[in-house]
Amino acid sequence: MTEFDIITQYFATQGLQRADVRIGMGDDAAIVQPPPGCELAMTTDTLIEGVHFPKATEPFDIGYKSLAVNLSDLAAMGAEAAWVMLSITLPHEDPKWLHAFCEGFFTLANQYGVQLIGGDLTRGDLSITVQAIGFTPSKTAILRAGAKPNDLIYVTGNLGDAGLALQSLQNPMQLSAEDQAAVLLKLNRPEPRLEIGQRLRNLANAAIDISDGLAADLGHILEMSRVGASINVDALPLSATMKKLPDPHQAIEFALTAGDDYELCFTVPADKKSQLEQVLSSQACRFTCIGHITEAPGLTLNDQHGNPYHGKILGYQHF
Amino acid sequence: MTEFDIITQYFATQGLQRADVRIGMGDDAAIVQPPPGCELAMTTDTLIEGVHFPKATEPFDIGYKSLAVNLSDLAAMGAEAAWVMLSITLPHEDPKWLHAFCEGFFTLANQYGVQLIGGDLTRGDLSITVQAIGFTPSKTAILRAGAKPNDLIYVTGNLGDAGLALQSLQNPMQLSAEDQAAVLLKLNRPEPRLEIGQRLRNLANAAIDISDGLAADLGHILEMSRVGASINVDALPLSATMKKLPDPHQAIEFALTAGDDYELCFTVPADKKSQLEQVLSSQACRFTCIGHITEAPGLTLNDQHGNPYHGKILGYQHF
Repeated sequence: MTEFDIITQYFATQGLQRADVRIGMGDDAAIVQPPPGCELAMTTDTLIEGVHFPKATEPFDIGYKSLAVNLSDLAAMGAEAAWVMLSITLPHEDPKWLHAFCEGFFTLANQYGVQLIGGDLTRGDLSITVQAIGFTPSKTAILRAGAKPNDLIYVTGNLGDAGLALQSLQNPMQLSAEDQAAVLLKLNRPEPRLEIGQRLRNLANAAIDISDGLAADLGHILEMSRVGASINVDALPLSATMKKLPDPHQAIEFALTAGDDYELCFTVPADKKSQLEQVLSSQACRFTCIGHITEAPGLTLNDQHGNPYHGKILGYQHF
Repeated sequence: MTEFDIITQYFATQGLQRADVRIGMGDDAAIVQPPPGCELAMTTDTLIEGVHFPKATEPFDIGYKSLAVNLSDLAAMGAEAAWVMLSITLPHEDPKWLHAFCEGFFTLANQYGVQLIGGDLTRGDLSITVQAIGFTPSKTAILRAGAKPNDLIYVTGNLGDAGLALQSLQNPMQLSAEDQAAVLLKLNRPEPRLEIGQRLRNLANAAIDISDGLAADLGHILEMSRVGASINVDALPLSATMKKLPDPHQAIEFALTAGDDYELCFTVPADKKSQLEQVLSSQACRFTCIGHITEAPGLTLNDQHGNPYHGKILGYQHF
């Protein structure tokens, strides 16, 4: 089977056909029609085996996750996802692997109406590069640079579970099989918060998705907005599994520093609190106020009593 | 130095700032404004060390070529290039390598007014994935599927030099240093035929760029257009270096089957021959009629006397 046969056979099985895709897979380039009056949001992320996902990860999950982390970037801009391109580097022809990978990729793509419009397949150590393209109405994209003093800081979902899952794979921990399965799902199939991101347009001053850990990613907002933040570590949203850890400081450590959660962190003016609660009330996903933006730079951690909290803070670095 | 420092330091050195890029590098996604009334052309290609470029290739040339092969895809659609995203996987931090890579990448990007709007840097075996995005006025993109019987078949530039260069690296050949330098330039710094592609809008019925060899890539046009082709092998455009090969059949072999030339192959209705010649008259790049499209399927090779030509035809396959 040649490269072209493989691509045709698996990449072409998505089924979804968007009206704005005039030419999809199979020509020198895809031809698509952006909606009038919109800006485009574009992002790319590479996932390397052993760096961004454990070697034992199921190909379905690799497919799912490699799309999810890119859609998560669009979510953090408040964008609607539309088109995606996919480059896979594989050590050898492996139809079974490719089939399962595409199943995972297309399951998520179809859920959000995202069409695969281009792809490349090369031979080498396993890695996946995805580009995702979406729309925002002009000037509504939510940037990292917009946070203002006294903004409330929110996060979606629970924090730290993906990091806990990764650690449970590397070092046996006292997690029940059920608990491990729950956090592994967060590691392998993060849910891009696309609808929440879109609802934050004209409401959030700044947003980012949490890929490297809350402290590190909130740090990007602070740096680009030239502000600081005060976080109540006891307000950090934790899953039932995380709360079972014998050391509560370890749970806070995971929530602050573990990457791979792909939840959104965003800031909202304090006087828009009730508007936010109303706008997100229909969402199944929880959202939690964890602190506020300060004029003074730096990240300050307090406990629920207002006392300074001391813990290591190390965002995950790929290098 | 962290991943973010490296990205900021090198990826942000392009200088070029397009008016349609509202947010470039440094947020979760780039935000760009497509021009009204245009369609977008999007393509992606991955280059792996040892597969798509020899291990000894200079980083400047890797940067140049990884952009060039993507711009070449846009050229084959008749598109104008605008924005580009870049993912580099590197075995280890190497500021000198990254600096030289970016020099090569930006030299070509600046030449065509293309802005880098997103990037990712990961650790692993050396590979580069680029996505290029461009515009075409609505419904003017040149597809592979449009070739019609009796269309004339043209190619730009000379064919086979990149393949000859590759072979001269692998097996010592009787090429002078000057000749080897000339063909290596074709291998390492292919020129994307963007302006020619744009001039072919509303004129060419079909187009493709030659990445896998003329026979293989013309084959894609034939397959998708459900036609055949008759090629005069003695009309294939050869460089002065190629003409020095002792065996003329070997030169034809290179021209028909060697990949990496990144010239355009396109078909034009016979009655538009003079219009084509006029439209391309200002171009420094040569263009040559090498045959015509036939109703009967398949690729027929003839010599200048109309006699059947027999030679091996093997397009380059990455798998």
